[in-house]
Formats: sequence, C-alpha cells, structure tokens
Amino acid sequence: MKFICVTSLFASAAAFSSSAFAPKFNAGVKSTSALDMALAEGQTPVIIGVAADSGCGKSTFMRRLTNIFGGDVVGPLGGGFDNGGWETNTLVSDLTTVICLDDYHLNDRQGRKETGLTALDTRENNFDLMYEQVKALKEGQSISKPIYNHVNGTLDTPEDVEPTPIIIFEGLHPMHDERVRDLLDFTLYLDISDDVKLNWKIQRDMEERGHSLESILASIEARKPDFDAYIAPQKEHADLIIEVLPTDLDKEDKKTLKVRNIQKVGVPSFDPAFIFDEGSTISWVPPADKLASPAPGIKMASGPEEYYGKPVQVVEMDGSFDNLQELVYVESALKNTNTKYYGELTQAMLKLADAPGSNNGTGLMQTLAAFAIRSIYEKKTAEAKLAQS
Amino acid sequence: MKFICVTSLFASAAAFSSSAFAPKFNAGVKSTSALDMALAEGQTPVIIGVAADSGCGKSTFMRRLTNIFGGDVVGPLGGGFDNGGWETNTLVSDLTTVICLDDYHLNDRQGRKETGLTALDTRENNFDLMYEQVKALKEGQSISKPIYNHVNGTLDTPEDVEPTPIIIFEGLHPMHDERVRDLLDFTLYLDISDDVKLNWKIQRDMEERGHSLESILASIEARKPDFDAYIAPQKEHADLIIEVLPTDLDKEDKKTLKVRNIQKVGVPSFDPAFIFDEGSTISWVPPADKLASPAPGIKMASGPEEYYGKPVQVVEMDGSFDNLQELVYVESALKNTNTKYYGELTQAMLKLADAPGSNNGTGLMQTLAAFAIRSIYEKKTAEAKLAQS
Repeated sequence: MKFICVTSLFASAAAFSSSAFAPKFNAGVKSTSALDMALAEGQTPVIIGVAADSGCGKSTFMRRLTNIFGGDVVGPLGGGFDNGGWETNTLVSDLTTVICLDDYHLNDRQGRKETGLTALDTRENNFDLMYEQVKALKEGQSISKPIYNHVNGTLDTPEDVEPTPIIIFEGLHPMHDERVRDLLDFTLYLDISDDVKLNWKIQRDMEERGHSLESILASIEARKPDFDAYIAPQKEHADLIIEVLPTDLDKEDKKTLKVRNIQKVGVPSFDPAFIFDEGSTISWVPPADKLASPAPGIKMASGPEEYYGKPVQVVEMDGSFDNLQELVYVESALKNTNTKYYGELTQAMLKLADAPGSNNGTGLMQTLAAFAIRSIYEKKTAEAKLAQS
Repeated sequence: MKFICVTSLFASAAAFSSSAFAPKFNAGVKSTSALDMALAEGQTPVIIGVAADSGCGKSTFMRRLTNIFGGDVVGPLGGGFDNGGWETNTLVSDLTTVICLDDYHLNDRQGRKETGLTALDTRENNFDLMYEQVKALKEGQSISKPIYNHVNGTLDTPEDVEPTPIIIFEGLHPMHDERVRDLLDFTLYLDISDDVKLNWKIQRDMEERGHSLESILASIEARKPDFDAYIAPQKEHADLIIEVLPTDLDKEDKKTLKVRNIQKVGVPSFDPAFIFDEGSTISWVPPADKLASPAPGIKMASGPEEYYGKPVQVVEMDGSFDNLQELVYVESALKNTNTKYYGELTQAMLKLADAPGSNNGTGLMQTLAAFAIRSIYEKKTAEAKLAQS
C-alpha cells in the first residue's frame, strides 16, 4: 500500500529513508491471510485512528497492516493522478480505506499565513466536518471529502469516499475531538521520542545534506510548542502507544532503538500482549545462540505500568536482531499476539523483510499492533453479525 | 533427620533459631517419595560433599534431603547417647548416612591450644584418613571412623560406619583435598555472605543476648582470616553453590534474603535449573495476585554467568512469599527442577512448611538442590546397574 500523506511543517516520511521507520514503497504486497472483504448488508466499518507526526513510519505501518489484512487492490483513490485520476491522499484496497486527516485542514497554506497559525494548531482543522464524515462512514454512507494538496498547499475539489470494512483515519489529530474519538473502534499513537527525531534529523539533514546542527535544532524547537500543545496530549486517549526511544543498552549509540508497545488495559476486544507470564514484570536477554544480534545486543521486557494514571501492559524490545528467521524464538515467548497459528508473526515479518524496522522493535511492535487490529476487526464484525441474527 | 554437628569456633546451628537458615528439629519427617533403599549387590554409594560454615543451615538442608529421598529410620548412629548408644556426629537412615567432617580433626581442643591453630586450618584436619575412609565407603566397605566430641573437645573411641546408598560428607573441608574431592559424586557449598552472617549474629547476640556490637564484630573478624584462607576457596570446586545474600530490594532491610543457586555447567548427571527459557538472562517480578509477598516484595532471576572463570547457570530468589501454596506458580516457571511430576517441588516445600526458610529462597533453593541430588543419585545408580548387566 502506498502512502503519501505529508504535512507541511515537518519532513516527508520518505525523507527518513535511512531510519528504521522510513517507508519503502513496495506495491502489490501479498497478504498472509485475507479477511472477508466485502462490507456485507448492514455491516458498518470498523474505524481505526492512527495519530502520528509526519515522517514517523505511518507508511510502513500501513504496509504491515495490509500485509496482514489482505486485500488485492491497493492504491490511491481513483487510480492516482498519473493514471488519469486526481491528486489524493486517500488510499484504498477492497478491504481498507486510509484517510489522511490533513484533508480536514481548515485553511490552505495561504490562509494559514494570514492566521499565523500552524497546521498542528487545532484551530486550523475542521473538526465539525471530520466528525460528520467519520460518523457518516461509520453508518455505511459515502462522503464527499475535501483534499488538501500537499504540493500546492491548496484545498482541491472534494472526492467521494465509499465505506470499506476497515477505515483508517491517520494524521495529526484523530483523537483530539471527543466526538470523533468516541466513534473510533481502536486508537493508536506512534510516539517517536524527541531524541530519536533529533537523531534521525541529524542523520538526514546534517550528515546527508550538510545542514548545521544549529539550524536543525532551531527547526525542531520552532515546531515543538504546537506539537506539545496539540498533538502529544492525544497520547492519553490512545488504546495503544508505540513508543520509539533511543536504546538503553549503550548511551553512545544513536541508531539502535528501544520500542515499547504501551497497551491500555480494559479496552474492549483488545487483550494486551505480554512475554512469558501475564501480569509479571519481566526483563529478558535472549542468548546469542538463539537470537543473534549486533552490538549493543538485544533486551526484551514486559510488565504492567501506569500511563496517564491508567493501567497499561507494556511489551518492549531494545536492540536489533541479525536473523529475521530467529524471530520465531521471540514469538514463542510472546503471548496474546492475536495470531491464528504459531509462527504467523514471524511469517508476517519475513514477508516484509525489506521494510524499514524489520530487524528491530519497530517492525515487531507494528506487526503486533496489526495483528491486534485484525483481531479487533474480526471480533467487532462477529459481534455485529450476532446482533443482527 | 536430626543433625547436631557443631564446630567449636562458631555458633551452633540451633542458635540461629530466628534466622531463615536455622534448623528446627522435627523427627520422623515423612518422605514424599521413597527411593530404592538397599545398597544392592555390587552397588556402591553415591557420595555428596556439603561444605558450609557451622550454623549455616546444613541441618535444615539435610532435613529437606531426607524429605525428598525418603528413608524411615533417621537418627544418630547407634541410637544416640540417650538411648544407650554413644555420643556421635553421624546420622543414619536406611538410605542415607551423614558424616560430619569434624570427626577428622587431627587434634583435640587441647591439642589445638598447643599448636595455636584453629579447626578451620587445614593443618588441623587429617585428610589422609578422610581420603582413605571416603574411598573405602565408596568401594562399599565399612570404616572405623574417629569421633570428635563437640562437648568435651576430645577425640573419642571410633565408631563403625556401614555404607548406605547415599553418603553425605558435610563440614568445613569436604572439597579441600583433591583426592577426596575426586571421589565425590556431587559437591555443594552453602555460602552465607558476611553481611548476612553479621545480621544474624547481631540479631542473636546483640538483640537477644545483649552483647555489644564491638564484641560481635571482633569475634567475626578473628575468625575471618582462617575462614577465607581454608574454607572459602572450596567454592571454586563446588558443583552447586547456594549463596545467601541480603536483599537487593530494600537497602535498609536486614532480614530479607536474596538466595542464588549457582549451578556449574557441564557436571555429569546435573542439568541446571532455570526460569522460563534456557540460556536467557531473565528477571521476573511476579504480580501480587499470583504470588503474595510481604515488603519489600519478591523478585526472581535466572541466567548464565561466570564463577571462578567457569560457566554457571544461576537461578535466584530475592524476597519472601506469604502463601506457600502459591509456590506452585513459581514452580510452573522453573525448568529442570528434577521433579517427577508438576507440583512435586511445592509439595516438598509444603511438607516442611514449618522449617526455617520455607517462605523464601533458602527453602526453595535447598529443595531444588535436594531434587538435583536425588536425580544424580538415580542416574548414577542406573548407570552402575547398566554397567554391570
């Protein structure tokens, strides 16, 4: 699934090509198991909210979702600009629609110059329209959705969007508005820590493009107040937070990542994954002969914690692994993975072996999230069918 | 099994009645599973060496062994002094003989006054005789063994000791002499850290008997050089070291213990126990609803380490538990326990629920050691039978 949502103030996702979370386009991904795809008579879509900064790996995550959900036709709505369609941020398969929330920007780029506000600012986004359209889709109705043109910064002619069984609303503010939030069946926040964002930006803008450290820090600082004010607070509302941090295993290491799935306890249809034993606090360093890893090694962890005052179950991987095949050993220790058979998690990772993060916790945790979403979809669909019969 | 070996320089085991390692005499312990008890035609004894300072829980450990090995008659050789026998340090059941190595002291107490050496000093022990007698027993022959009288400090008339299927040599120097060491089928060192010894001594001598801290420290300091010179070096030769340390969970806590089974890798017939996954380094804090524990809580750990330059597998428990029944949950995570059915470890602990340390790692690790020794005994016996057939 291609994915081209880009916000104006931060780098495009593709720019992070050397980072673990960078997207790597690969059309025609084969699914490991296809779901029942048609939106059946009376069935309403399951709607997933994904909050993340731009350039934070949403594209790769969407690819991992499609890999697991299945669905044959994946591409821009209308076939894309090059094929006689229109410039769009909306991606569709016969199972999934991905809507980019930038399309709900209130003003075009010129308009924001007049207000002096950034697109991060909630006042620059039309939550009334977002709510109406999420609600309509959830009720199985088509919508006429605006298009924010990232190239020109203009608001283009709206496009018609039909509901599919799964609809993903991704962007800066899927959980800001309470009315929208209440309509979402599952919410996810991709949380890249400031240190990791800085490391990635240094790698790209300084090492590859020759920018000065001062200018990089200045651009990050300029963006930070609005991000902290309008985007980060949504973490409190997410059912699952994928947190990406610098490794704890070597203070000097700027590339290795520690990735944590912070899973809210008590979310309907969502049983948090854990390692070895439910409810226990476990740290786990596998031996090198079972799971080879480059320096600084690998460490997994799992356990109950509090997050914004609410109970969560965390599962964590710090470090990278050498051989993706050996992930089946990690899979054997992971419980509540929402897989349908032993090895399915490893197979899903192997099928996207070339995707960024497939050798570390970003790939593993995104894949775990994808299986959880599949499970939620299947449970919600089964419940809906049961309610109708 | 009663056990009354006491050395002259340190406190008697019974004095540690408030400590976790204190012995609590309970005659007629029922065995959980009786082994084949008779020394069959051509069968030679399996000989276990147990090194430990006096007052370090050997008695409780012997009780745990008997609990698991079985054997009906447990008592002093000859029935004991009170029953018309003689003053002895040797304990027998129809399966096991426990020989106290103090019986191999070279001089009596008066003699040591003349040499100016302590009983800890290897020069005060007759290793030639010890070797000859261990060798004779191992070959199935009876011996005439000296008796060191702890009350009078005299060397009494020797007693005849017949070989039984399992013979335990316990005391200060079972692993000092290379010839003796080579005859032992399995060796164990009970290693109480200086801090724990001091805490126990303070508790007994200061809090219960009103001694000054200075006098306690002085008595420990006086003993330490010979202990470090002659006893501690045997740790390097032990197949299993049970290490007792102060808890890491609360720096102020002087009573809670961290107990580590340091299991040498590559010892014939001995497969080291581990938690959850072999070869992994794991720390594990069980949730309170599965394993209740008083402050400062409970933490288990397991993993490969080096000990005197050799590879070992460590399994560790820090803290105490409230409810011995819940130990079955810990048992479910322990592998290579050498039990014959799931729950046997917990049953063995429950049968000695009143024994010191049954609510913490000392009881658990001693019980694990007892199961390992049972397994070694059974494997060696089976091998011997196979060799004869």
